[in-house]
Amino acid sequence: MTSRIETDSMGEIEVPVDRYYGAQTARSMQNFAIGNEFMPIEIVHAFAILKRAAAEVNCDLGLLADDKKDLIVAAANEVAEGKLDDHFPLKVWQTGSGTQSNMNVNEVISNRAIEMAGGQMGKKDPIHPNDHVNKSQSSNDTFPTAMHIAAVQELVKRLKPAIVHLRTILDQKAKQYDEIIKIGRTHLQDATPLSLGQEMSGWVAQLDFALEAIEAQEPQMLQLALGGTAVGTGLNTHPEYAERVANRIAALTGHKFVTAENKFAYLAAHDAFVGMHGAIKQLAVAAMKIANDVRWLGSGPRCGIGELNLPANEPGSSIMPGKVNPTQSEALTMIATQVMGNDATIGIAASQGNFELNVFKPVIAYNFLQSVRLLADGLNSFADNCAAGLEPNRANIQNHLEQSLMLVTALNQKIGYDSAAKIAKYAHEKGTSLREAALTLDLLSEVEFDEIVRPEKMIGPKT
Amino acid sequence: MTSRIETDSMGEIEVPVDRYYGAQTARSMQNFAIGNEFMPIEIVHAFAILKRAAAEVNCDLGLLADDKKDLIVAAANEVAEGKLDDHFPLKVWQTGSGTQSNMNVNEVISNRAIEMAGGQMGKKDPIHPNDHVNKSQSSNDTFPTAMHIAAVQELVKRLKPAIVHLRTILDQKAKQYDEIIKIGRTHLQDATPLSLGQEMSGWVAQLDFALEAIEAQEPQMLQLALGGTAVGTGLNTHPEYAERVANRIAALTGHKFVTAENKFAYLAAHDAFVGMHGAIKQLAVAAMKIANDVRWLGSGPRCGIGELNLPANEPGSSIMPGKVNPTQSEALTMIATQVMGNDATIGIAASQGNFELNVFKPVIAYNFLQSVRLLADGLNSFADNCAAGLEPNRANIQNHLEQSLMLVTALNQKIGYDSAAKIAKYAHEKGTSLREAALTLDLLSEVEFDEIVRPEKMIGPKT
Amino acid sequence: MTSRIETDSMGEIEVPVDRYYGAQTARSMQNFAIGNEFMPIEIVHAFAILKRAAAEVNCDLGLLADDKKDLIVAAANEVAEGKLDDHFPLKVWQTGSGTQSNMNVNEVISNRAIEMAGGQMGKKDPIHPNDHVNKSQSSNDTFPTAMHIAAVQELVKRLKPAIVHLRTILDQKAKQYDEIIKIGRTHLQDATPLSLGQEMSGWVAQLDFALEAIEAQEPQMLQLALGGTAVGTGLNTHPEYAERVANRIAALTGHKFVTAENKFAYLAAHDAFVGMHGAIKQLAVAAMKIANDVRWLGSGPRCGIGELNLPANEPGSSIMPGKVNPTQSEALTMIATQVMGNDATIGIAASQGNFELNVFKPVIAYNFLQSVRLLADGLNSFADNCAAGLEPNRANIQNHLEQSLMLVTALNQKIGYDSAAKIAKYAHEKGTSLREAALTLDLLSEVEFDEIVRPEKMIGPKT
Amino acid sequence: MTSRIETDSMGEIEVPVDRYYGAQTARSMQNFAIGNEFMPIEIVHAFAILKRAAAEVNCDLGLLADDKKDLIVAAANEVAEGKLDDHFPLKVWQTGSGTQSNMNVNEVISNRAIEMAGGQMGKKDPIHPNDHVNKSQSSNDTFPTAMHIAAVQELVKRLKPAIVHLRTILDQKAKQYDEIIKIGRTHLQDATPLSLGQEMSGWVAQLDFALEAIEAQEPQMLQLALGGTAVGTGLNTHPEYAERVANRIAALTGHKFVTAENKFAYLAAHDAFVGMHGAIKQLAVAAMKIANDVRWLGSGPRCGIGELNLPANEPGSSIMPGKVNPTQSEALTMIATQVMGNDATIGIAASQGNFELNVFKPVIAYNFLQSVRLLADGLNSFADNCAAGLEPNRANIQNHLEQSLMLVTALNQKIGYDSAAKIAKYAHEKGTSLREAALTLDLLSEVEFDEIVRPEKMIGPKT
Repeated sequence: MTSRIETDSMGEIEVPVDRYYGAQTARSMQNFAIGNEFMPIEIVHAFAILKRAAAEVNCDLGLLADDKKDLIVAAANEVAEGKLDDHFPLKVWQTGSGTQSNMNVNEVISNRAIEMAGGQMGKKDPIHPNDHVNKSQSSNDTFPTAMHIAAVQELVKRLKPAIVHLRTILDQKAKQYDEIIKIGRTHLQDATPLSLGQEMSGWVAQLDFALEAIEAQEPQMLQLALGGTAVGTGLNTHPEYAERVANRIAALTGHKFVTAENKFAYLAAHDAFVGMHGAIKQLAVAAMKIANDVRWLGSGPRCGIGELNLPANEPGSSIMPGKVNPTQSEALTMIATQVMGNDATIGIAASQGNFELNVFKPVIAYNFLQSVRLLADGLNSFADNCAAGLEPNRANIQNHLEQSLMLVTALNQKIGYDSAAKIAKYAHEKGTSLREAALTLDLLSEVEFDEIVRPEKMIGPKT
Repeated sequence: MTSRIETDSMGEIEVPVDRYYGAQTARSMQNFAIGNEFMPIEIVHAFAILKRAAAEVNCDLGLLADDKKDLIVAAANEVAEGKLDDHFPLKVWQTGSGTQSNMNVNEVISNRAIEMAGGQMGKKDPIHPNDHVNKSQSSNDTFPTAMHIAAVQELVKRLKPAIVHLRTILDQKAKQYDEIIKIGRTHLQDATPLSLGQEMSGWVAQLDFALEAIEAQEPQMLQLALGGTAVGTGLNTHPEYAERVANRIAALTGHKFVTAENKFAYLAAHDAFVGMHGAIKQLAVAAMKIANDVRWLGSGPRCGIGELNLPANEPGSSIMPGKVNPTQSEALTMIATQVMGNDATIGIAASQGNFELNVFKPVIAYNFLQSVRLLADGLNSFADNCAAGLEPNRANIQNHLEQSLMLVTALNQKIGYDSAAKIAKYAHEKGTSLREAALTLDLLSEVEFDEIVRPEKMIGPKT
Repeated sequence: MTSRIETDSMGEIEVPVDRYYGAQTARSMQNFAIGNEFMPIEIVHAFAILKRAAAEVNCDLGLLADDKKDLIVAAANEVAEGKLDDHFPLKVWQTGSGTQSNMNVNEVISNRAIEMAGGQMGKKDPIHPNDHVNKSQSSNDTFPTAMHIAAVQELVKRLKPAIVHLRTILDQKAKQYDEIIKIGRTHLQDATPLSLGQEMSGWVAQLDFALEAIEAQEPQMLQLALGGTAVGTGLNTHPEYAERVANRIAALTGHKFVTAENKFAYLAAHDAFVGMHGAIKQLAVAAMKIANDVRWLGSGPRCGIGELNLPANEPGSSIMPGKVNPTQSEALTMIATQVMGNDATIGIAASQGNFELNVFKPVIAYNFLQSVRLLADGLNSFADNCAAGLEPNRANIQNHLEQSLMLVTALNQKIGYDSAAKIAKYAHEKGTSLREAALTLDLLSEVEFDEIVRPEKMIGPKT
Repeated sequence: MTSRIETDSMGEIEVPVDRYYGAQTARSMQNFAIGNEFMPIEIVHAFAILKRAAAEVNCDLGLLADDKKDLIVAAANEVAEGKLDDHFPLKVWQTGSGTQSNMNVNEVISNRAIEMAGGQMGKKDPIHPNDHVNKSQSSNDTFPTAMHIAAVQELVKRLKPAIVHLRTILDQKAKQYDEIIKIGRTHLQDATPLSLGQEMSGWVAQLDFALEAIEAQEPQMLQLALGGTAVGTGLNTHPEYAERVANRIAALTGHKFVTAENKFAYLAAHDAFVGMHGAIKQLAVAAMKIANDVRWLGSGPRCGIGELNLPANEPGSSIMPGKVNPTQSEALTMIATQVMGNDATIGIAASQGNFELNVFKPVIAYNFLQSVRLLADGLNSFADNCAAGLEPNRANIQNHLEQSLMLVTALNQKIGYDSAAKIAKYAHEKGTSLREAALTLDLLSEVEFDEIVRPEKMIGPKT
């Protein structure tokens, strides 16, 4: 016997005997044979936490018997710990409220709890998926709650440490190379000099700003819809339930979750994800800039800019022997484009709520969690496999610095913009050094030139 | 004589005699005959403020003579007040650093100051566009500074009051209609009831959250690049200049501007605009939801949902007499789609910096300021021409409430989900009322039904 | 012994003994531990086809021994048939040229061929991954070739039939219901009537137009980069190779592939994917419109529009018993938002080529193939689980038609727009029928009214 | 007296006496004081063509008196010729069907015709804006018709010639520089050589492909909704009207317009704009690649790649004298980002139709026409101000070619990939030439090396 019969309000359906899920999950698998994208497992784990919290609060409020609560908690813990990951076969592309994933969790917890209690799976006794596991809940408030729990956990556990990891490595490099003076580049054209450390400090600042932007959007992510039930009113819940269950989730996760100020908004909209993903896009944009700078500074080895040496992690080419490519930059910039696309999807999806519900929840969750995971992994990979091994190519840096015509800018305050421009143009056209041009044009003395045009004095304000 | 000769480092060029701008502006008009989009005038006005602040600080630091400072301040004030708007003919599609718009400002201030001083326009004496007006500055730090000044001013002066205006009107409506109980809708399908006030409170909350998100991103918008000059190092500035000039701009504008923590990042990236526009997209997304709800609730008059009456502001149709359309919703949702597109543009543009400069500054400024203006105007228009005149259609609301089958949800706690589902299905199939179905199926008594299934008791938690 | 030693130009590395892949694949797994997204298997299968074609052409041209060719073909066939899918563990987020996935294919074919030949895996003899499997190739021309092969196959095999499937079902419905006259709706407001068949014919036309748009973009998808090798010049290939190998691939796949007109463009850009995905976005946009119409027409059952009955495929709610939701519409509209986001990603990624190579190939392939798969599956699911079961709710349709005021439009030609508007306004304000209003206002006779205002005469032009 | 009274079905309103527009235009100005974006004038001009065509066909069909037709045609011609542009003050952000812009045209034509006839403006006699100018029309079919007419005209008149202009200049350059052999670059790293002409031919091909993609999407743009009237059924039109009016518009414009196959789709959706703008995005993406290549190849002058010299059109910097920047590339890449954002807006807007109407028409028209104008102007500006003046820096090109290590690839076929890799690595580590490395490692003879490693033999296939 490889299957058993499960039932829901539409009737009977066969379920594989070795799976804990029930009728609604099985029905969803039939009705939504779409794509390869599974409901993110982080959502499932977050659901387990909220199911446990709900059971405990229901019990505290006298609405659920102690033994039932214990069974639910025990089963929910197994789900939360990832022990039952194989029992969540549903796709992202399903009911837009995530109802079927909520029921998948209800069914797995119910059947696993029934199994623990020695009952018969599918009989919904002693633990009924709706009446007990889903007690005081609706898909409409649980799914957004799971979205917020998963999002906060992933942000805190995965993304923020990755930002800090990369910014720390780059900051060390910036300090280490703060004495190396190099040519600046604006419009891709030679500009006035700065130190390599200063250049890298800009990257560090971009990461710090992105982190700050993400943290600025956390308050709305910490609000939970749970307690709103079907439409946000809290029908079929105890007056103390919403606040208690948020507190319980906060305690279980260690994050400062609170019950949402307005539950109607938290069912019908996912604006918090838009704002937060905007901050995440800020991070993606920063990553694009940094990864691009790194690969351009590492371009060459002989026909590019060549001011940085990048670690050679793998053979670069299947046809060009000896080629080393900036592959970590490539992976990270591809991720940045993915995050920008995800941002578009999340924005559109979040704008499409109607009345008491937004039914684009799974696609928002999927894209948001993908962005977080990709950026976290991508930043870590870039940090360890590229940034940590960056080294200046001092010969090229020095060579560029000496050749540049933009040191002429230091003369503005002495001889004015127009005369300085003449020197630069002359040197450019004749292929001479600035010094030679300045003296030929007789615009200032040798002593003055040597006093003023000194790169090391051009990398900061001065009186 | 309708033109005069102006010069720059490339030579001579004719300029209309009645314009204050000079050679570089004229050259840009020739080289960039692209599109209809002018550099936003808010950028020009912001530039004027920073030119004044720079002149004052340069003077305080002993780098600019008092009389030159006074001339620059006088001319800059005219620009800031909008008196010289016709002298800024440049397009968005120009040098990516906005150099030509910076020079446009320098040239106009220079020539207007020369005029005030009785000099000859174009002679750059007594006020030179580069050496005096642009003193201690570069396009690379002034343009982003102008972007930040303009952005903050527009956000504070225009957008935030518009959000508050709409949320206040909707909040009044929400309170006014808090006693009207109506059917809820999830998945567009009838759901459990809530009050009209509760429904509207969700809209208010979305606006509040958007405002909160915007304010959360303000700190990075308040940082100014000025003092970084060409590449962020502050070459050709006094050590005290950056901080002093930020303070001066703060004093002139009344906003808490500070000098940027890291000027390299503020020239080479515009991540702050990405994060802030993410919050603005959150607002657009909220506006889309609210405007959609309003028009759907107002759909009809006889074949739609018809629970709200919308003000009739104009004839609705050129062919269908008597038609009234939800036109304010239409304008606002079109704006929301524009803002979502602008968000894509800003993200891509901001990601494309290289080394010491991002050369997508004008397109970022243009899109950002368009989003702010459109949302501000659109929210105000929607508030005054639609939201303020919204009225419930009580007959339709009551009719829907009485017919709905989803009141059955109140029975879950009494008879369980499965039995409640049987009642709803029976009523649906037979076209009966829930009450009749419940009694026919003998699932609970008449007294029990009437005690439990009461909409007014279904719009909140209860013990 | 669970691992063996493999080597590449960087040295030795351990590989699981039961895997056919070699050193570069193993190295990539270490260096790119990013995300969950595997290189789409369709790309791997397409690679196998091109490896076989290349081996055969190389052999025909006398550049590869017959026995080596046979081994490569045999191993490549196993890859193409999906027998070795477990040997392709690389992620999307890797080298931007897909070099490592090309090498993964080279290594698997090499080792499987060696195994077939009784050799020792990892020894690169008798089949060397670079010198034989990759002969006359580079990642830079093979990866885009695999992208195009996979894209065309998926479009032809998967997406186009799904479009036809849905349009056929909807077309049948449109014909079946062509006699049912219903109210039209513009601006969500009641408008002049049309038949249900006419309304549905608009959906069919949208699908037909999308299909036409996709087919219009096929020519550029049918061009193959193969033969361009490293930079597009065809270095290390025989003059006849490019054309021969394209012909061979055409023969193997049954699609009209040709060698690319300009190989530089086909390595350095993926513009064809942008244009084609634009057409695919057209399909997504059409799907959004159709799925939205269906769910709104099915809204209710008692408090919505209720003109269509949708199949009830699953229990709709975990808390509201008896609820049936338009879940297929929800899945399909979520997919539409995903495709719109993917379109953004593909556009950005495709714009970022430099010189002779675009290094955003894997992210383009991933997003493109995801869009194709999701739309294909989503359209099929919507067709079978929703569209095929759609039925008109004739009572509601008739009821709406009779109540509508917009039938007044038929009077324009008789009494003019302004008089017709008066009738509609009067009826709206007084809650009367149009007929009653018309007669009360004495704007035309009873006979005239009854002659003109007949819905069945209002659904087409007339003399 | 500066104003007159105009009336519509809502009553009286004041209108400036020197304007031809009437009550509904005036009302729209009050109700939609939003933004700075005017309805694109191309839409107004297109409207005038369709108004003329409709009047002529109505007259031919005996539905409009000859004298009225003549008046309408005369007034419409003035609008089409741009003589009355100042009488179209409406914004993009209005009714989503563009009803008010349709009425603006109706009113201006009516009042101008009345004026010509010696009547009193505002009296709607002898030409009534609805009954005569709008005869056989609705906003719902006229606005999309105007969109299609304007789009086709702009594409044909403006965009396609600009593409051809740039591709022609680049093609000339490509042919001119076909003998210059240079180093190729993949992953920004030195790769095998190609000719400068080959490199440029890739740009030409990208432009050709974009043009081909645009032309592939033209058929759906050539279909006109006119004749569908309010909901697509053609109510209030003559059976021959739709086809006749499309033919008339084709004759007036010289473009192959036809009446839409399915008018329901052409009112309720704007999918054709999505598909066409996808092709336009392909062009934007190509422009981004080309403009980026140009500026990177022109980077320097001393610390960059420096293989191309770009025309110096303006002073580059307000602080760095003598700087010349790739400003045309900057303008063009900014445009590319704008077009990518517009593409997002158009896609979202087009997806939001409901039932018989899409009410995002103005925002689609605005973004589409902006993309077309910006790309056309931007490509022309880039062609004339940059591409036409591009010159190779032969010294730098030669220098890079000689230094590169990737010439080693030519040895693959002689000594195999692994040996070739050893040579490259040795040369890289020791800083020697390939030749020296090859001989030191004794992997082939001097004669062999000199025979094989010759750049001019590496830029194509060979036997």
